Amino acid sequence: MPSVSKRGEIMPESPIRKLVPFANKAKSEGKKVYHLNIGQPDIATPAEALAAIKNIDREILEYSPSEGILSLREKLTDYYHRFKIDVATEDIIVTTGGSEAVTFAFLACLDPGDEIIVPEPSYANYTAFATIAGAEIKPIPSKIEEGFALPPIEKFEELITPRTKGILICNPNNPTGYLYTRAEMKKLRDLIKKHNLFLFSDEVYREFCYSGAPYISAFHLEGIENNVILIDSVSKRYSECGIRIGTLVTQNEKVRENVMKLCQARLSPPLIGQIAAEASLDVSEEYLLNVYDEYLDRRKFLVDGLNRIEGVYSPIPMGAFYTLAKLPIDDSDKFCQWLLEEFSYENETIFMAPATGFYTTPGLGKQEVRIAYVLKKEELAKSLRILEEALKVYPGRVG
Amino acid sequence: MPSVSKRGEIMPESPIRKLVPFANKAKSEGKKVYHLNIGQPDIATPAEALAAIKNIDREILEYSPSEGILSLREKLTDYYHRFKIDVATEDIIVTTGGSEAVTFAFLACLDPGDEIIVPEPSYANYTAFATIAGAEIKPIPSKIEEGFALPPIEKFEELITPRTKGILICNPNNPTGYLYTRAEMKKLRDLIKKHNLFLFSDEVYREFCYSGAPYISAFHLEGIENNVILIDSVSKRYSECGIRIGTLVTQNEKVRENVMKLCQARLSPPLIGQIAAEASLDVSEEYLLNVYDEYLDRRKFLVDGLNRIEGVYSPIPMGAFYTLAKLPIDDSDKFCQWLLEEFSYENETIFMAPATGFYTTPGLGKQEVRIAYVLKKEELAKSLRILEEALKVYPGRVG
Repeated sequence: MPSVSKRGEIMPESPIRKLVPFANKAKSEGKKVYHLNIGQPDIATPAEALAAIKNIDREILEYSPSEGILSLREKLTDYYHRFKIDVATEDIIVTTGGSEAVTFAFLACLDPGDEIIVPEPSYANYTAFATIAGAEIKPIPSKIEEGFALPPIEKFEELITPRTKGILICNPNNPTGYLYTRAEMKKLRDLIKKHNLFLFSDEVYREFCYSGAPYISAFHLEGIENNVILIDSVSKRYSECGIRIGTLVTQNEKVRENVMKLCQARLSPPLIGQIAAEASLDVSEEYLLNVYDEYLDRRKFLVDGLNRIEGVYSPIPMGAFYTLAKLPIDDSDKFCQWLLEEFSYENETIFMAPATGFYTTPGLGKQEVRIAYVLKKEELAKSLRILEEALKVYPGRVG
Repeated sequence: MPSVSKRGEIMPESPIRKLVPFANKAKSEGKKVYHLNIGQPDIATPAEALAAIKNIDREILEYSPSEGILSLREKLTDYYHRFKIDVATEDIIVTTGGSEAVTFAFLACLDPGDEIIVPEPSYANYTAFATIAGAEIKPIPSKIEEGFALPPIEKFEELITPRTKGILICNPNNPTGYLYTRAEMKKLRDLIKKHNLFLFSDEVYREFCYSGAPYISAFHLEGIENNVILIDSVSKRYSECGIRIGTLVTQNEKVRENVMKLCQARLSPPLIGQIAAEASLDVSEEYLLNVYDEYLDRRKFLVDGLNRIEGVYSPIPMGAFYTLAKLPIDDSDKFCQWLLEEFSYENETIFMAPATGFYTTPGLGKQEVRIAYVLKKEELAKSLRILEEALKVYPGRVG
């Protein structure tokens, strides 16, 4: 049998994925499992999007342009302008989800051996996309005691080598819910400028900022217009993860040229998804406000509930719909598996994401889990109760 | 400005793409342009697929499983069995179009510096996908005088090095329309076995075989079950290129493991496309027969018409919906551009694909063009007339 690629072999499997069989087994045994592990909202997709799909009046479901349907890109331009992201339609390339946007950004900018600096914990799949490009992620730990604020800029400086090509941030942050402050973003801007780096900025959660603090897009930073590559997606804000529509936005023409070669090779992003995404951009203010209020409410409920459990600590997430909480446990991988495999409370249990998968530095995240508040409050209440009861009897409890 | 990746810079731009601005300009000047350049059929998508989309009854357009929806994969299993491709549901991974299937196959199997042998002319985007994986395509020219039959197996042997990891074929072939014979496939099988290589087999045109000769899938070859990676797509057979649904099929568990890591990183293939694809598998026999008869008719009409033009020669394509014809011209890139930019007949012109883009060996294909018979016969008749008139006056005519 011919041997497979080393690339595939070194690509890490997410700790969440490793737990899926245990969750399935628990369900097959009749246990109810609350999914706090993934960013799949239970919020309804906008009626406008569903109607647009029903009303498709085409005889042929044909290729769309490789860069995306023009009317969608024009509407996205207006959308970005509402956030004072002053980009032109030509700067916007439609991708097959935010995933493809990250992959294409890396492939267009990074060669094998190149390095990017990423504050950790961070979205686990960035590592997979970097591995595809042959590039390496250099992590800088942020700390739960500091609410996962941006690490000191000197720590970034220390990691910069001749192979450093960029910095990647996710803002508001998955998995921590942290929202970078204006002061932090300015420091990043200065660093990017000083070393002439790319700033990959994943801002798919921009609608979900809960504190009075402003959302500062990478595009708000002056003087690095040609360095910024914005990663975006309609998945989270319109609860339509399945349509696979994202965008890559950059004013750097050379990057766009490279990205377009990749886009042309894969022919086109999904046609029907684009139709749904375009309709979603017409969604009522009311829909977005309702979604916002719902998450705001869940966030308070979950975080308050977590901090009431003895030994548990969650910072207050300022954005997105996750929190990274610290638990009095020996090992988050073991604990999350134990919850699925051995524990139940009133024949129910919870599926959480071990934080180890969000750290590149080995050994970090062992006492932390990511909890997505994508379930209704009643379900979050039950989940909190399950967590509390579980911690009372977990054999690996510490502290 | 930070520098972009070398990978992106070496990725070739397809000669077809270079001509698109000229086609757009011609249209903006009021010229009618017949698109013989791309594999975008004008055939209607099955009513079953369109109805399934209209009837979607979901509140949330959520992520589907990374490997694809189970019911779709089960139906595909039955579909493959009809072609005596004896695979199990677990062997089938749903991808975002055939494009992603090729990309993931390369990433899962090939490391930077690895080589794959590909008979040329071949589908231009294979080169882009190989570039993403850092692998190199080693071409073996097939000849129009031999109807683009498989080159002698000794030519393959000559190219094999310690870095050779596989052979890629497209069968029936895009761009030539050639259908590999049983004898040729057996020779390939022996070679694959002898050198323990992967056989990447792109069989997206299996429905379109027009001669009595049998379609031999790579999966029909005995003794190399763990070497075969089948690339497939619903795009062409159901005329639904825009939904972006393909498959990667392999019995090699190690390859599937690597591919699944890539699938999980990009989360899921398009949900709505999968719903359309699943419904398409229920299409009536009549639809497929009508489509088949239509292409059969167009093929005869086009190929007969081409061979009646002085100095033009087209072999009879046995499958797919393309033919690669030889023209009495100096340079196919120049000729195709000239047709769009300078020529018109009754204010109409044609857009053909220069064959240079389908060869990796520099200098080949200069007298050849690929013509897709994806237009109605009346349009093909006009296109043939335009070609005939153009060749009479083209300044670079030779022979």
